[in-house]
Amino acid sequence: MIKRFLVSILMFSSVSMVAFGQNEDSEMIKKIADEILLNGKAYSNLYSLCKTVGARLSGSEGMYKGESWGMIALKEAGAENAYLQACMVPHWVRGKKELARFKTNKINADPEFDILALGMSVGTGDKGVTAPIIEVKNFEELERRKDEIRGKIVFYNYPFNKTFLRGAYGDAVKYRGNGASAAAKYGAVAVIVRSVTGAQDDFPHTGSLRYNDTLPKIPAVAISTNGADKLSGYIKNDYKNENFFIRTNCEMLPDTIGHNVIGEIRGSEFPNEIITIGGHLDSWDPGEGASDDGTGLVTSIEILRAFKALGYYPKRTIRIVLFANEENGLRGGTKYAEEGKLKNEKHVMAMESDGGGEYPRGFGCGMTKEQFEKVNGWIKYFEPFDATRFSFNEGGGGGADIGPLQTAFKTPQFGLSTTGQRYFDVHHAASDVFEKVNAQELNLCAVVMASMVYLVDKYGL
Amino acid sequence: MIKRFLVSILMFSSVSMVAFGQNEDSEMIKKIADEILLNGKAYSNLYSLCKTVGARLSGSEGMYKGESWGMIALKEAGAENAYLQACMVPHWVRGKKELARFKTNKINADPEFDILALGMSVGTGDKGVTAPIIEVKNFEELERRKDEIRGKIVFYNYPFNKTFLRGAYGDAVKYRGNGASAAAKYGAVAVIVRSVTGAQDDFPHTGSLRYNDTLPKIPAVAISTNGADKLSGYIKNDYKNENFFIRTNCEMLPDTIGHNVIGEIRGSEFPNEIITIGGHLDSWDPGEGASDDGTGLVTSIEILRAFKALGYYPKRTIRIVLFANEENGLRGGTKYAEEGKLKNEKHVMAMESDGGGEYPRGFGCGMTKEQFEKVNGWIKYFEPFDATRFSFNEGGGGGADIGPLQTAFKTPQFGLSTTGQRYFDVHHAASDVFEKVNAQELNLCAVVMASMVYLVDKYGL
Repeated sequence: MIKRFLVSILMFSSVSMVAFGQNEDSEMIKKIADEILLNGKAYSNLYSLCKTVGARLSGSEGMYKGESWGMIALKEAGAENAYLQACMVPHWVRGKKELARFKTNKINADPEFDILALGMSVGTGDKGVTAPIIEVKNFEELERRKDEIRGKIVFYNYPFNKTFLRGAYGDAVKYRGNGASAAAKYGAVAVIVRSVTGAQDDFPHTGSLRYNDTLPKIPAVAISTNGADKLSGYIKNDYKNENFFIRTNCEMLPDTIGHNVIGEIRGSEFPNEIITIGGHLDSWDPGEGASDDGTGLVTSIEILRAFKALGYYPKRTIRIVLFANEENGLRGGTKYAEEGKLKNEKHVMAMESDGGGEYPRGFGCGMTKEQFEKVNGWIKYFEPFDATRFSFNEGGGGGADIGPLQTAFKTPQFGLSTTGQRYFDVHHAASDVFEKVNAQELNLCAVVMASMVYLVDKYGL
Repeated sequence: MIKRFLVSILMFSSVSMVAFGQNEDSEMIKKIADEILLNGKAYSNLYSLCKTVGARLSGSEGMYKGESWGMIALKEAGAENAYLQACMVPHWVRGKKELARFKTNKINADPEFDILALGMSVGTGDKGVTAPIIEVKNFEELERRKDEIRGKIVFYNYPFNKTFLRGAYGDAVKYRGNGASAAAKYGAVAVIVRSVTGAQDDFPHTGSLRYNDTLPKIPAVAISTNGADKLSGYIKNDYKNENFFIRTNCEMLPDTIGHNVIGEIRGSEFPNEIITIGGHLDSWDPGEGASDDGTGLVTSIEILRAFKALGYYPKRTIRIVLFANEENGLRGGTKYAEEGKLKNEKHVMAMESDGGGEYPRGFGCGMTKEQFEKVNGWIKYFEPFDATRFSFNEGGGGGADIGPLQTAFKTPQFGLSTTGQRYFDVHHAASDVFEKVNAQELNLCAVVMASMVYLVDKYGL
């Protein structure tokens, strides 16, 4: 009787197992969601990261505190194995607070501006830079007026285009990244860059620049959007042709040692197949690195915690990686892939969250078409969470830190995609604090990430 | 030549006109979006509403200040005709700050709690209410323990279910709405209700209750979620069987005069066909009524401003209505439909936003199936804004204030739908302030609303 019953089950397996699988998967995903939404630790972990560690730029004391925080958080979440993976990181330091003002003969009357040196920028030295200032809207204007640039401070006042709902940062960040060398080419002595943000406020937003090594390295600073508007007004009116003064105190020290912080649960069936999930541990020095990228860290850790709390044993090894040095070097992500290559590891999936912890909408999927078709077949499981925006990016990346895995192993990549309208308001600024993150939205990010990890772990790609 | 050309156009009109129409509409919607995202006044209007008017409960001084603010905002936006429509509104006043604490023989040692009387509640009188306290999880427990209720203060400690991503408020608000009368039925002397919010914080969230007129009216208050957890702990441990004391100073005064504030642009082709768009002007007395419902007001006004700024003349009459008294009476929405009926108006569309100004996802559509099919055909225009979640609710409403138009005229209804995970964090609490609203998300709400108004105005329903 039992044997005949089994045969009839097997006969219908192609249909019934699919149906059973769907049902079982829906139930498991519901369990994951309930665990995270009711008992989640992502928000309290974010609080402790922001308020006991705070900023954690590569090489800073905060970096080391952040690494300790990460080890503890991973162990508390239930990692069976938590360890540090060393890598050399750049050690850029800001030094004391920057100064920026018009410098005229009017005693004590010249307006001052809050600025932040751009990351990796050279400093001005104690004497600062004093020079006439020239405002340009964009690189086209710089080219047009290249004969006027020599000996001046170039002020890039390119606005964040709010009509690009998902491309404004990529559009504007080139002035921060390349503006210094582009201006140095024509003899500029320093650059001021309008903050790359949609927020109209008083916070300068910093971030890395990249010097062209064939050109002089000149100091570069960010100014807030309000400050940029004010400066532009002064240049056009009361302070036309007046000198401007900038002093920055930043410098590059020799590389130092940082670490990827890694926590694992070992796979029950395929322990050699590795699923990497992470965000980056380093953050710029203003603010608390809450949305960039505290949220990516705590949601990644939450996946491990939820699986453990539910007593769920993934088939494959789940590795949570808190990457070192995404912001100004990508040394952590690079090291992680290198070590994987040396150890001949098998990396079957990578997921990154580095766009803040807003309401999740889906994933950017950097993989083959066949893999994407399989992923797309799971979209129904994401409908309850409204996270159904799966975008295909063949061979593209899911994020900076997992990019090297793609190069080294062709590992399929998932980058969490959110509503994303608030992230750049606080990005790289003193306003990137815990209070800007919503607990429920953060938990939903973890739910959606954990659900995808569950499916890929179970079915492979 | 011209005639032959026209003929060939007409021959292909069924295809080409559709294509042309789509293209023209996409372009117009892009213009609307750019105008709002680059030059929008919704955020600055919200600032002035929150910071110069603030709370504006029906009958309060704030209500009158809010009406003046609305008249000015509508005129500044370009309303050709702005006027007040009078209606009687309830006049409930909170009086001085409430008190709540355990009342034992320990001198000065009893813990105090921040509470807010529920709207429309009776007060306790100067002497307050002193009685034993009994905690129940829900109405089922109240029923089970009905013999223990007499002479006691009932504490409803029903949590906001965070696993209901879009139904937690509806699930929990019954304790605020009906809890007093349900407890009075068994002889309770007062009720304390856990705030109907997903936020874990120190703010009591108020809101209306409804008394059953056949039962004694007993005082009712809200306690914050943190306060509820603390109170629950005390009841179970240190203060078991101790008396609790509540004093509230609220009272109902006679009805007074309030106003719907209305601004119009008259239709160029069908001026007698009215499109109503609005939110509610009144707000609860803690906080600034920023998300409830300042955001609905300023996005509605923004539609009118954007149309005027673009020199766009709608075919039908666009009427922006800042409704009076949604929170504790719905007298404004009721009056508006009544007056429409008396004047034999033709109401062809109504839209409401009363769920905050978060990232918009689409609309709840209360209309016939045929109308919804037409609306659904426009979904492509909302894809650039990710606002494609159109949900059909046959004969249902788009919001409380426009509900009476549905009853009176069968007017098709649109309720703006957003991501909605943050709204109830601040709802009816002191935390409902301007700073919790994001400028870009708010503008996107206005874009999506204006786009739908443009389409319905142009093509009808």
